[in-house]
Amino acid sequence: MSIIQPRTLKGFRDQLPATMTAREQVIETARRVYRSFGFTPIDTPALEYSEILFGKGSDETDKQMYRFEDNGGRDVAMRFDLTVPLARFIAQHVGKLGTPFKRYHVGPVWRGENTQRGRYREFTQFDFDTIGTESLVADVETLVVVHDLFAALDISEFVVHFNSRDLLNGLLEKLSLETESEAVLRSLDKLAKIGADGVRSELRDGGASDGQVDEILALAGLGGANDEIVASLPAIVGDSDTARRGIGAITTVLEGVRASGVIEKRVKLDVSIARGLAYYTGTVFETFLTALPDIGSVCSGGRYDDLASLYTKQRLPGIGGSLGLDRLIAAMEELGKIDERAATAQVFVPLFSSDRVSDYLRLSEELRSAGLSVELYPEGRKLGAQMKYADRRGHRLAVIVGDAEWEAGTAQIKKLDTTESEEVAYADVAARCHALLGAEA
Amino acid sequence: MSIIQPRTLKGFRDQLPATMTAREQVIETARRVYRSFGFTPIDTPALEYSEILFGKGSDETDKQMYRFEDNGGRDVAMRFDLTVPLARFIAQHVGKLGTPFKRYHVGPVWRGENTQRGRYREFTQFDFDTIGTESLVADVETLVVVHDLFAALDISEFVVHFNSRDLLNGLLEKLSLETESEAVLRSLDKLAKIGADGVRSELRDGGASDGQVDEILALAGLGGANDEIVASLPAIVGDSDTARRGIGAITTVLEGVRASGVIEKRVKLDVSIARGLAYYTGTVFETFLTALPDIGSVCSGGRYDDLASLYTKQRLPGIGGSLGLDRLIAAMEELGKIDERAATAQVFVPLFSSDRVSDYLRLSEELRSAGLSVELYPEGRKLGAQMKYADRRGHRLAVIVGDAEWEAGTAQIKKLDTTESEEVAYADVAARCHALLGAEA
Repeated sequence: MSIIQPRTLKGFRDQLPATMTAREQVIETARRVYRSFGFTPIDTPALEYSEILFGKGSDETDKQMYRFEDNGGRDVAMRFDLTVPLARFIAQHVGKLGTPFKRYHVGPVWRGENTQRGRYREFTQFDFDTIGTESLVADVETLVVVHDLFAALDISEFVVHFNSRDLLNGLLEKLSLETESEAVLRSLDKLAKIGADGVRSELRDGGASDGQVDEILALAGLGGANDEIVASLPAIVGDSDTARRGIGAITTVLEGVRASGVIEKRVKLDVSIARGLAYYTGTVFETFLTALPDIGSVCSGGRYDDLASLYTKQRLPGIGGSLGLDRLIAAMEELGKIDERAATAQVFVPLFSSDRVSDYLRLSEELRSAGLSVELYPEGRKLGAQMKYADRRGHRLAVIVGDAEWEAGTAQIKKLDTTESEEVAYADVAARCHALLGAEA
Repeated sequence: MSIIQPRTLKGFRDQLPATMTAREQVIETARRVYRSFGFTPIDTPALEYSEILFGKGSDETDKQMYRFEDNGGRDVAMRFDLTVPLARFIAQHVGKLGTPFKRYHVGPVWRGENTQRGRYREFTQFDFDTIGTESLVADVETLVVVHDLFAALDISEFVVHFNSRDLLNGLLEKLSLETESEAVLRSLDKLAKIGADGVRSELRDGGASDGQVDEILALAGLGGANDEIVASLPAIVGDSDTARRGIGAITTVLEGVRASGVIEKRVKLDVSIARGLAYYTGTVFETFLTALPDIGSVCSGGRYDDLASLYTKQRLPGIGGSLGLDRLIAAMEELGKIDERAATAQVFVPLFSSDRVSDYLRLSEELRSAGLSVELYPEGRKLGAQMKYADRRGHRLAVIVGDAEWEAGTAQIKKLDTTESEEVAYADVAARCHALLGAEA
């Protein structure tokens, strides 16, 4: 019979045990943090009516969608983010759920993107949102969630950069450029990439004067301590309602974040943060790892005025964020934070003799009952071959019991990353394994 | 603007917080058990080349597949189980991973099935497999994993029913019906549904004599304690190599399971278990909840001779099982084991006064630091409205701090399922919440 070449589609990939274990650990940590703030989990289908997913989409989104006709003749598509399904979900269930509603949602999304930019066509998003409130308490909490999440992940120094869209909008009102808001946002979003000159040239092409561009760039270029920036804002953004709302929001958020115990350097007011997406209003944020600034934001989001207007007449304002799991795992790999051994049971038990299978099964289950993870080799092969297997897998300890040890009521415990080995009484094996693993960790 | 009706596709559904929380808890428990045996996580794409997924498929599988042409003109499909992707995965990566390889994999699969049978078109499987060994130690371990999993889930009494295909195959050799193996398996699989008479009529239609059917039904009807069944087997299934292999395997598995500390009534030799799927050889098993026998098996699997023959010439025998997450959650709902309150933070903090937002933020974060999950209401509405929200959500405790309490350095802790309330010093709030939650649990 001819063999089918085993392969994945371009832009898709398998997760092998080491990275998958890291993914599970990050997801577990994020869940714990989200839950500690009262966010609850939901899930939505991978496949929806195209009409639902396409809703607010652009031509580009449409081209990226995996869209097809199902066997029942329905026009369906695979979800390309978790925000559109959330909007549909909340419109459908808000009567039952009530507001405010705080949910998290982790799952794969699919985009038929150009893979040359190092992007995948299947990737995982991990979103959290607070829906149904305009209170700035939710804005504060969102930034504290991100802070607590990255503190819990303990993978690198990080800084949450935040801003209010109202600052720029206030300035644009002052400059009578408020109709150009989206174009200016799009240009500013590229500031880090194309530089001030690039932004200037784009804005000039869009019809702004040099003086107007100077003021926009002056705002985007504001630096220094959070309080210093706040102090210089009124002179730049003016005194419109919008400008005052922006300054007020930023002041409230900074106070609240400080009250929540977040140290100054972790949440940074950064007036250059724009977030190109049109639906954001008010607070926007991005999160950078200090050790890897070039990978871009690993957790971003912001406030929106009305999430689900395509599906319901009930106005649903809110704020949320999205953790980019694939980018974060790539960062962990680059930082050497993926521990191959975390994917493997702590203890390896070689099976010396097929006559004693029951004894090895009993031993293994006793160690598991004591809270250890234990892999018993299934075949009575030569000890050397079994230990080679353990080396490859990366167990921390081997509990070796041959005929002599069974007779004597003892076991050898071998630390597999050294040549150390010790003999202990059979009854003490679990406790000694715990002690050795604890000392190693 | 006209509203798009928010709805899911037929056969698809949203997961609301209560069931999603239960799903997460079951998945977390299963992961912990699988890991304790040295199984490691993997993931594979939702979308693969149709050629890969279709491999061994039948006409029925093909009709059920969500299959389409992607934007790049590729013939692709959504996975309909986790076994075919595992076969492709192991063929592709076995050189790097080596054997034995023990993996678990949880994820959605899609089948455009007839939804009238109460089935969904998107459902979640949670599989574990040991690949690359013929040792019966892996068979023992598989049953012990299932046992430990359901013991850890603590949702109902359960029994793992197991059998060896070699018993029936031995009998069919004795009856010179070995070429009819698949047809007989398919009929026996329906024994519970169509009864002995139904099976008899199917087998007679297939050409078996009444005497032959008598012997097949005698085997399938064997009951009693495990050891009694084993003792009666030789007289029924005969003395061929196949029959002796089957009896030997069952004896070894029963010994091993007993050595692993599993009590007799939890793993039951059940010679009527057939598992219709053609690829099983040797051990097969199903798991039933004593309180809900009618929902069928919630965890099933068996041994296979060669997993990945479509994709590699390397022979890869193994054994695995699949936890039916959707069926299990449905059972938990039926048993009243879904705790709506598990989806909600333990502690609710109403926000009395917008002037003190920073104080409430600090309080909430202090309680979180003490290990509590805490939801702070984001808006300074009337206390009654806020407490109504907490009732709806199902928090266990409310920590109420009004102006008087802030002045006095105290807080009211209210047990929300009673009318009890007590005043404690601010510094003691976290400890007292823990005590109340502990007493309640």
